[in-house]
Amino acid sequence: MEKIIAGIITIGDELLIGQVIDTNSAWMAQELNKNGIWVGHRLAVGDVREDIWQALDIEFRRASIILITGGLGPTADDITKPLLCDYFGGKMVVSQEALDNVKKIFERLQRPMIARNLQQAEVPDNCTVIPNHRGTAPGMWFEKEGRIFVSMPGVPHEMKGMMTDSVIPTLKKFFKLPFIAHRTLLTAGIGESFLADHIAAFEEALPPSIKLAYLPNYGMVRLRLTIHGEDPVALEALLQQQFDTLKGLVSEWMATDEDISLQEAIGRMLKTRGKTLGTAESCTGGHIAHLITTIPGSSDYYKGSVVSYDNEVKKKVLHVSPETLTTNGAVSEPTVEEMAKGALDLLDTDFVIATSGIMGPGGGSPEKPVGTVWVAVGNHQKIITQKFAFRFDRQRNIELAATNALNLLRKFIPSVD
Amino acid sequence: MEKIIAGIITIGDELLIGQVIDTNSAWMAQELNKNGIWVGHRLAVGDVREDIWQALDIEFRRASIILITGGLGPTADDITKPLLCDYFGGKMVVSQEALDNVKKIFERLQRPMIARNLQQAEVPDNCTVIPNHRGTAPGMWFEKEGRIFVSMPGVPHEMKGMMTDSVIPTLKKFFKLPFIAHRTLLTAGIGESFLADHIAAFEEALPPSIKLAYLPNYGMVRLRLTIHGEDPVALEALLQQQFDTLKGLVSEWMATDEDISLQEAIGRMLKTRGKTLGTAESCTGGHIAHLITTIPGSSDYYKGSVVSYDNEVKKKVLHVSPETLTTNGAVSEPTVEEMAKGALDLLDTDFVIATSGIMGPGGGSPEKPVGTVWVAVGNHQKIITQKFAFRFDRQRNIELAATNALNLLRKFIPSVD
Repeated sequence: MEKIIAGIITIGDELLIGQVIDTNSAWMAQELNKNGIWVGHRLAVGDVREDIWQALDIEFRRASIILITGGLGPTADDITKPLLCDYFGGKMVVSQEALDNVKKIFERLQRPMIARNLQQAEVPDNCTVIPNHRGTAPGMWFEKEGRIFVSMPGVPHEMKGMMTDSVIPTLKKFFKLPFIAHRTLLTAGIGESFLADHIAAFEEALPPSIKLAYLPNYGMVRLRLTIHGEDPVALEALLQQQFDTLKGLVSEWMATDEDISLQEAIGRMLKTRGKTLGTAESCTGGHIAHLITTIPGSSDYYKGSVVSYDNEVKKKVLHVSPETLTTNGAVSEPTVEEMAKGALDLLDTDFVIATSGIMGPGGGSPEKPVGTVWVAVGNHQKIITQKFAFRFDRQRNIELAATNALNLLRKFIPSVD
Repeated sequence: MEKIIAGIITIGDELLIGQVIDTNSAWMAQELNKNGIWVGHRLAVGDVREDIWQALDIEFRRASIILITGGLGPTADDITKPLLCDYFGGKMVVSQEALDNVKKIFERLQRPMIARNLQQAEVPDNCTVIPNHRGTAPGMWFEKEGRIFVSMPGVPHEMKGMMTDSVIPTLKKFFKLPFIAHRTLLTAGIGESFLADHIAAFEEALPPSIKLAYLPNYGMVRLRLTIHGEDPVALEALLQQQFDTLKGLVSEWMATDEDISLQEAIGRMLKTRGKTLGTAESCTGGHIAHLITTIPGSSDYYKGSVVSYDNEVKKKVLHVSPETLTTNGAVSEPTVEEMAKGALDLLDTDFVIATSGIMGPGGGSPEKPVGTVWVAVGNHQKIITQKFAFRFDRQRNIELAATNALNLLRKFIPSVD
């Protein structure tokens, strides 16, 4: 079966001066992928007629499906629509459907319409209008020599509505799409090259229909197997078999066998066991609490944190003894142990994470350089500690300290079952 | 003066299946822009030899500077380096400088090196090695017919280090770049379109050498004036004059007249006054503490936070009365007031921020829908509150609640001087 290749073109100066981060492309790629369409390339261009025209030409030559976002709003810098009209050799007409939509939206908002808004109902006569249920700019579907060009607004929730309601279902009718499936697992505590060495034989022996990808991030490495072809049942079975082999090979470092984050994996472990968690953070300054609480439903198992940035807070709230702090310093094994115990009692939870370290750029010393972090995790019966030495900037040291602390807890929880 | 055009090529399958969002491109575009280099287009391609080659060809024809990220890690799916070697007609050799760097990193980590790591020191003999102080993959600088091609790893902090330490300074020597200067101010509490209406006359009357950009982010809008041309002294004077006018126009909403974050502005306000801050966070789950502690030196004024995610923690640690919680619920004005008072006493600080809300997707009700947030800020003499209604997803609601809470404090501090 022929692989169906898509190209994504995003239009807008804001993408080229770094004003906005393009999140649309990743979302669109995910949706296309799920449906067996392979995104071959992405292009971003500014609000410049020749650049947009060239981008269309480039994708025309190499893709069967070209998704275009941006350049359709009501303001003056939008030149995409007339350009598409010219590119496909049509002329602008008023779409009654699009006009009714614009009127309906302004009625609902109880706002007066201006000429600029009415113009949004004008479309090239050689496109099929894609209804926009979430905004005033209509989408446009063009066909040219067997290629599909779809133009959508850049506003993420408008684009997503159109993709889900219209574009994907229509593409599925238009093309005979292959079956595609992924399996992802997350490892922690092993570097990318060691992991690659460890599974080199497995990788080499993979059937040609399966591709392995390494996706490193914050001291963790995600491994992804992808299969595509024609027979869903056979492919799923083959993929699962290879995934099971991979899981066995990396079990020592596997944080989760799903495409989820460490904090989500910990959340599931706690929920399954009916246990609760609290944290006592010094150097991570609330970042662990933040990561945990980004997960919907985390209030079921996460009770809270004492961010004891100041030593007075460590003493007064967490009852770390003044002697411990004087003798060992705030960044020390005895201090994180006492922080952990203090938090377990104060927050009344089953498990705890405590951190104390020097994140930089200042505050380091020869004995305790910037990047030195002590972590404690445990429960009421047992507390374990680990010392880390990070060597990055403040932001990344904080992120790594948080991730490694979460990973230490991830290993601790099943060890005390 | 000729406009210097750059193109950005990002390499990696992970960008085409939507597994990661490309944040590198936006950062690189910002850095290039600051230095008078215009990003004309961006291309993303997978780990496919022909596609990378074609991307290089496309940018060769239309850009003077081509920045490439990704595809340089130690694992097998990386094909970029040999391809670049072929593209520029070189052969692979071991770079002593890159080898020393790899060895140094492994010594510091006290980990054994494997063959795969040593391979990272191999580079095409027709490139100049760009040192990587933050990782093992060297950067590579190629020149071809007056164009500069720079290849960097995709790991954001490694790429950023190379850009700042080597690439930008070298580009500034290589090209005659125009003089470019920016002035940025941050507004909070006013929407982009209202702001645009308010300063429409100012914008229209701007001299042609000055460009105004609206940079909205998390409920705040950054306004940036950019000037470019040849005479630094005259341009600086003109820019400052216009910036002063703009500051006068938006003074009501101006959080800071520098290109710094809200938390940094608050840090400066506290430091100047010799005052301290503590926080009590429920719905923001530690995110405010995290934002504050990302600022180096924040331990001078920030004492800590009680993340009272669970109501028991609100009662036990912050002494919110059980009656208040029963009568009004956790998401209420009386609760955030009591949280603020409790945190002021417990953490013994001059100022406080407290938050309580429903971030979604679950937990909403007709009276308190998802996105309802109560914020309190104050000192020992006075506490003020404000209710917010956000309407986004969990992640963005958390970010908006944190930003708006910080902004409330930013306005409160000078009001009690």
